[in-house]
Amino acid sequence: MNIDRKKTDTEQIRIDNRREIIETLRVYGPMARVMLGRQTGLSPATVTAITSDLMAEGLLKEVKSEPPASPASRGRPRVLIDLNEESSFVLGIKLSMNELRYMLGDMKGQIVAEKAVELDTLALNSDSLMQTILDGIDEFMDSYTREKERLCGCGVAIQGFVNANEGEIVWSPALSFRHCPVTLPLSDALDIPVVVANDANCIAIAIRNQPEYQSMENFAVIMLGYGVGMGVIIDGALYSGFHGAAAEFGHTKYTADGPQCNCGKKGCIEAYVSDYAIYRKAKTLVELPETNELHPSDLEMSQLLAKAESGDPNVLEIYKEAGEVLGYGIANLMALFSPEKIVISGQGVRAYKFLEAGINAGVESALVKELISETTIEPYSWQKDITGIGILALALKAIY
Amino acid sequence: MNIDRKKTDTEQIRIDNRREIIETLRVYGPMARVMLGRQTGLSPATVTAITSDLMAEGLLKEVKSEPPASPASRGRPRVLIDLNEESSFVLGIKLSMNELRYMLGDMKGQIVAEKAVELDTLALNSDSLMQTILDGIDEFMDSYTREKERLCGCGVAIQGFVNANEGEIVWSPALSFRHCPVTLPLSDALDIPVVVANDANCIAIAIRNQPEYQSMENFAVIMLGYGVGMGVIIDGALYSGFHGAAAEFGHTKYTADGPQCNCGKKGCIEAYVSDYAIYRKAKTLVELPETNELHPSDLEMSQLLAKAESGDPNVLEIYKEAGEVLGYGIANLMALFSPEKIVISGQGVRAYKFLEAGINAGVESALVKELISETTIEPYSWQKDITGIGILALALKAIY
Repeated sequence: MNIDRKKTDTEQIRIDNRREIIETLRVYGPMARVMLGRQTGLSPATVTAITSDLMAEGLLKEVKSEPPASPASRGRPRVLIDLNEESSFVLGIKLSMNELRYMLGDMKGQIVAEKAVELDTLALNSDSLMQTILDGIDEFMDSYTREKERLCGCGVAIQGFVNANEGEIVWSPALSFRHCPVTLPLSDALDIPVVVANDANCIAIAIRNQPEYQSMENFAVIMLGYGVGMGVIIDGALYSGFHGAAAEFGHTKYTADGPQCNCGKKGCIEAYVSDYAIYRKAKTLVELPETNELHPSDLEMSQLLAKAESGDPNVLEIYKEAGEVLGYGIANLMALFSPEKIVISGQGVRAYKFLEAGINAGVESALVKELISETTIEPYSWQKDITGIGILALALKAIY
Repeated sequence: MNIDRKKTDTEQIRIDNRREIIETLRVYGPMARVMLGRQTGLSPATVTAITSDLMAEGLLKEVKSEPPASPASRGRPRVLIDLNEESSFVLGIKLSMNELRYMLGDMKGQIVAEKAVELDTLALNSDSLMQTILDGIDEFMDSYTREKERLCGCGVAIQGFVNANEGEIVWSPALSFRHCPVTLPLSDALDIPVVVANDANCIAIAIRNQPEYQSMENFAVIMLGYGVGMGVIIDGALYSGFHGAAAEFGHTKYTADGPQCNCGKKGCIEAYVSDYAIYRKAKTLVELPETNELHPSDLEMSQLLAKAESGDPNVLEIYKEAGEVLGYGIANLMALFSPEKIVISGQGVRAYKFLEAGINAGVESALVKELISETTIEPYSWQKDITGIGILALALKAIY
């Protein structure tokens, strides 16, 4: 039986309602109690009781709004409820090829400090990775003693496959070993709850947490970049499957015997659409700097993009072909998930205008129009890496 | 915000708990109140209150158990709670190529009467299909006046794409037109709630409702037969996507330019693995009776299977190849959904032992072992068509 024991449990309802209020304020910013009630669907009495508790705990504060312009309100400023950003802090860590990034986030989920450390990640083993991270945390937090005292959670974002249930890295292109436990050693050492998540899932959460995506309950976020990842939101929550490693869109297949993928298999969508796949293909056709083929730099990808901007027909063709393969993979997604929307993100989205025609052609050639239906595909403008925002949000969600 | 307004609503909790009790009794059969509490996680007081209400409404009844063998219990029979099977009836209708099947189900979800009518479904239009169904219901129910009075719901199972949200058939190989509204015209005429579902989803529900599948919250059921369908259970419930047509596994792709699929596109998994695809391929290699290629009969498929049983190397090779394509599609499912289990059902599962080696080879060639992980693939023995059991369960779920 599909038993949800929560529903008969008033204590659980109280916890859910607290979380609802905290998350609403995190997404929409300060608001009056009456608006908070409207937004959450909670009764005024419940809102008053929970906000009083949270204020007593120091997690919320009252702020004065600017006086409204309307003369009917007699110019009195209204009292708004806001998260007390200094009440709690969380730590975010992002592991990617040759980089560890440390981020300090406040109660609002904003990044207040950040530091990137270059290192040879492929030279690490399971123990030295954990020790490196712990040393890095010590050094990073050294100048944040006040925040350190109020540190109450940690999240680790990983480029690669993650088993979120077991709290381990299953495989990462940044590491030369497999199956690395993360949450247990870190939570033992730091004495705070630790969560681990795939980088694309973090991006999906960061996008989901924006006001304009709050009404969307079923959508997929594809991340284009050094790899091809995906995060799927089902019924408003991140879907991670029974084994905690769902939504590995980049390793669904275009063809049984295609180009080599980073994962070890052939013909995966990633082997056509990731930075390394596009750069590898481009190098056979146009002159480009020599590089680590499996990890072209941002600069190298920008140079390739510049060639497309200048109308180089070979490069344009490469992006169109990559778009077609991506569209073919998206067709499978539509057939299986029937999502409201498919959002394309990650730094690879900077080439969207060169991918777009191929994507549409790929989808239309693969799928009957009844299944394409009203699912829209849209690019998410990539100003900066939002993986950190996502992992901080997941760390906060694990606490409050 | 992911607002679940239900959680603050005691009325909704009461409705959920009623449903929980009814469904538990439907799945597990009669049980003592104390067991019902343990099974549902509801308190004894809640179980007593709800079962009293349901008995007053006539939906439940008390039955005496056989006296237990243990002498400690002094041989007294215990009082068990059971569904009153005669309290309500539901109607199930299954539309497939050239057949309409009518089923009468009781409160327990058991089929109490059944009738199949052959007709030329491709000659129907939207109006004549509805009229045919309504006339068929009249005729079928003619000898069931008592049940007709207690008829309180109807479910329609469709071979093809269904938009469950809109209550319409989007496309069916059994029909020559598209977009046929179903739930509205039938509920208007019958004055009871009507639901519509894809046939593979019905099979997934029928399997899910068996006691041994109750603890499984995330799994996929693939249906092999005249087409290749799928039903996905996520968090214990059927997943139908935002557009109500998810899990169209048969129309995910094996290759961009493969054999013709019934849907109009090329290279879909169905175009390799369905009855018609296997029969079409077999006819190029072995002598088989002429048939309607798009719809080989059960008898014709049995004859083909007999050739495999007798060791015909051409037929064995065809099944192995079909298995490989199926395995390749399953690899995509594992990468995207990471389910606990993938169950293979439908009448095509009778050939499972000839497909199995190909399936495993296909999965292993397509997907890194970390993503195959512990997902198991298992055949579901196909004694008889369980689509009817599934559509009756969905019809009952829409009422209670």
